[in-house]
Amino acid sequence: MKITKDLYSASMALLTDLYQLTMAFGYWKSGKADQKAVFNLFFRNNPFGGGYTVACGLEYVVDYLNNFHFSKQDLSYLAETTGNDGQPLFEPAFLEYLANLKFTCDIEAVPEGTIVFPHEPMVRVTGSILQCQLIETPLLNLINFQTLVATKASRIYQAAGGDPVMEFGLRRAQGIDGALAASRSAFIGGCTSTSNVMAGKLFGIPVSGTHAHSWVMSFDSEKEAFETYAEAMPNNTVLLVDTYDTEEGIRQAIAVGKTMQAKGQQLMGIRIDSGDLAYFSQMAREMLDEAGLKNVKVVASNDLDENLIQSLKLQEAKIDVWGIGTKLVTAYDQPALGAVYKLSAIENNGKWEYKLKLSEQTVKMNNPGIQQVKRFDDGRQYVGDMIFDVNTELKKKSLIIDPMDATKRKTLNAEKLSSEDLLVPVFKNGRCIYALPDIKDIKKRHTEQLGMLDRSVKRFVNPHVYPVGLEESLHKAKTELILKLRKVTSNE
Amino acid sequence: MKITKDLYSASMALLTDLYQLTMAFGYWKSGKADQKAVFNLFFRNNPFGGGYTVACGLEYVVDYLNNFHFSKQDLSYLAETTGNDGQPLFEPAFLEYLANLKFTCDIEAVPEGTIVFPHEPMVRVTGSILQCQLIETPLLNLINFQTLVATKASRIYQAAGGDPVMEFGLRRAQGIDGALAASRSAFIGGCTSTSNVMAGKLFGIPVSGTHAHSWVMSFDSEKEAFETYAEAMPNNTVLLVDTYDTEEGIRQAIAVGKTMQAKGQQLMGIRIDSGDLAYFSQMAREMLDEAGLKNVKVVASNDLDENLIQSLKLQEAKIDVWGIGTKLVTAYDQPALGAVYKLSAIENNGKWEYKLKLSEQTVKMNNPGIQQVKRFDDGRQYVGDMIFDVNTELKKKSLIIDPMDATKRKTLNAEKLSSEDLLVPVFKNGRCIYALPDIKDIKKRHTEQLGMLDRSVKRFVNPHVYPVGLEESLHKAKTELILKLRKVTSNE
Repeated sequence: MKITKDLYSASMALLTDLYQLTMAFGYWKSGKADQKAVFNLFFRNNPFGGGYTVACGLEYVVDYLNNFHFSKQDLSYLAETTGNDGQPLFEPAFLEYLANLKFTCDIEAVPEGTIVFPHEPMVRVTGSILQCQLIETPLLNLINFQTLVATKASRIYQAAGGDPVMEFGLRRAQGIDGALAASRSAFIGGCTSTSNVMAGKLFGIPVSGTHAHSWVMSFDSEKEAFETYAEAMPNNTVLLVDTYDTEEGIRQAIAVGKTMQAKGQQLMGIRIDSGDLAYFSQMAREMLDEAGLKNVKVVASNDLDENLIQSLKLQEAKIDVWGIGTKLVTAYDQPALGAVYKLSAIENNGKWEYKLKLSEQTVKMNNPGIQQVKRFDDGRQYVGDMIFDVNTELKKKSLIIDPMDATKRKTLNAEKLSSEDLLVPVFKNGRCIYALPDIKDIKKRHTEQLGMLDRSVKRFVNPHVYPVGLEESLHKAKTELILKLRKVTSNE
Repeated sequence: MKITKDLYSASMALLTDLYQLTMAFGYWKSGKADQKAVFNLFFRNNPFGGGYTVACGLEYVVDYLNNFHFSKQDLSYLAETTGNDGQPLFEPAFLEYLANLKFTCDIEAVPEGTIVFPHEPMVRVTGSILQCQLIETPLLNLINFQTLVATKASRIYQAAGGDPVMEFGLRRAQGIDGALAASRSAFIGGCTSTSNVMAGKLFGIPVSGTHAHSWVMSFDSEKEAFETYAEAMPNNTVLLVDTYDTEEGIRQAIAVGKTMQAKGQQLMGIRIDSGDLAYFSQMAREMLDEAGLKNVKVVASNDLDENLIQSLKLQEAKIDVWGIGTKLVTAYDQPALGAVYKLSAIENNGKWEYKLKLSEQTVKMNNPGIQQVKRFDDGRQYVGDMIFDVNTELKKKSLIIDPMDATKRKTLNAEKLSSEDLLVPVFKNGRCIYALPDIKDIKKRHTEQLGMLDRSVKRFVNPHVYPVGLEESLHKAKTELILKLRKVTSNE
């Protein structure tokens, strides 16, 4: 097996849970394969205890769906898969059906970089229930992780308050594209550059990096190591000063910086990767300034995240550039988003029937219908999001009702507010009709959206809850459906 | 861009940190490119507060290195990369050097499935310092994550105490191979099957799965949903009973189970995915037994990990099969291992010089030398591991000294104990000389090694620390080197 080379060169239709295929078989076998259904992808809680989330991953989804097909190899593998009686799970006629299967669903989705909130559909898939089901798992895999990292990056971006943030998580990331997708998401969420050269090449993200401790250790002295580096690459010199003794390291770096200055070159910075970052950065700043190296930056790294950055800022650390790895790319304090993909409507005799899954936990009951989200703003800030059914005629003044607490309501007046529908068409009858934006535009969308969000929603601890609600008639339909389902199951 | 298709089809030499390439340039430029060095990959703490770790990821490393080369595309990208003066970072002659670069290092590594402990080298790379450095980041990426997940799976395997464990983390995993590599590592660490069909196909892991809530919701009634599934796929029927009301769901599943029984078929199980798993599993077991369906298994899932399994076992939950997703594949409670890769020796004038990085934190100082690990056992259990330099002549009785606390010592008598050297040759002069074991043999190695470990080392909370120490003369050499380095840097 050639893992890295062959892994992704074939079809990826098998990148799904087996139960999607056994259900597909069941739908096919029982004549329901082409029944039309609507599924929504959404999450139930903002990650990291925060007040908002940054949508990311759609470009991967588009790529995945553009290449969706079952290869001969895939089908031979499925043909050999057996059940508890040792007999094949799948009939040959079904595998033949898969061989000829073309993706024909409609997809609407929230563009990457958009701020989203719990319960809002991020992706809506409409089409044959069999196809909707097959793509559930890859959609969740791609969007869950990338949204999570973009959100983490957005928090770090906020904490850094405009300082450059370098992402260098590749070595600790969860797998190869655990790193690549993370670099892309981190850039969208606010990072300035990545250390991951392949991510730089693939996504057009600026790359950055200079040297490691091993560079210093491989020379007889730190002095020789610094001088050799500065001579080799004077246009990219950031010296790592903590291999042996940080204060002495700063002194050595200053000597090199002055030599460079004399040659008309520029020492870009020094980097501190251990110890008390507040203390050493202040010491470094003072020593650099005294030596006339005011424009040499102080770069700091060592398991940083938004909370540590905030704390270092409070301590008046003199850090100009932040290097962030593990905590960002693994979303360390909450390494999974938990977005789900739920059936919300199904066509029966040409009519849409609303669907939801009951649960004793209110948060686990999904919203039914063919949902769209309208975001209202007063020109200065976002004031509320309305989840509504696309087949509803909206009033001028809309009442939105919190899906978790029906006593929380807000009226949004379309005559006084501007609004934007968050979901845009991406696939029509299986064909991509969406022009993928440039990554820089996605990044810009994120910062623009963030700018429209009240600061109370953006704070890290106990943020204000941004108003998101169901449009009145959707709320009513949902309530009736719950009551009906509860009645049926309790056999009243 | 075709992310999923083209991503891995080219060279992966750029899957590294930029600083590896800028250092490579520096080594090349200063005439040090071929200086021979030794690097060790190791971690400092067992993950999850546990007492041991399971090595995993070597097969990916072998594959990566077998394909190591810079493509033309890679080199054009590097040629366009610029420094702070807008000029290229790399000279054309260096890029030419990379174009012709062949991997020529020696690699020794611990086979996958082996139990390993902090400070033990898992991979030792010997060769040109430039090449050693270039492969640092991908090696860390691949081994850090896979070792982490194999270890998590091993803990879950222990908690399940022989019950089958199904891994179904694809939807919440961190990226595509964050899922694929996790499925492989989870199987090695003790899982029985995966839901990830692509992982099944690639790695020869058994796949499992039946249906989701959406299957049930897409029918007019739960009864019809269950009956349709059992008719379509009688040799793979596990009915999910908690879509509406769990007790009623179990009743419906029993009816189907009895119909199947009458036809000579076998309902494999029912699955509970929410609510009080202890309570509902006991209820289900009782109802199934009363109905004469004693061999129908109860499958449980819902954010489980080793601690919840242990708790459910204590509560006498009647669960036969465990489904584990998010908490396993993301290693939720500690999503990064933190293994590092450190220079431990460098050749100068034909002689090896020991190297280490100073730190105020003892745990952050690496061990120098060309290290091998000897694991001693008394035929029944492992009794201690010795880290030694391969150029040391070992005594019959070896004194090992804890690298973190020199007062903790143990004598290992080679005349009374058996032993095994953990690192085996994998690459010689850049050529793979290692026969990759079958995944089932790797899995077996894990369970065999686990069986040789005292149960006090395997417990989840406050485990006994397994004895690992530096061989006496290596300890002495390290101490002298630290004292020498401290003296130099303090200018005494």
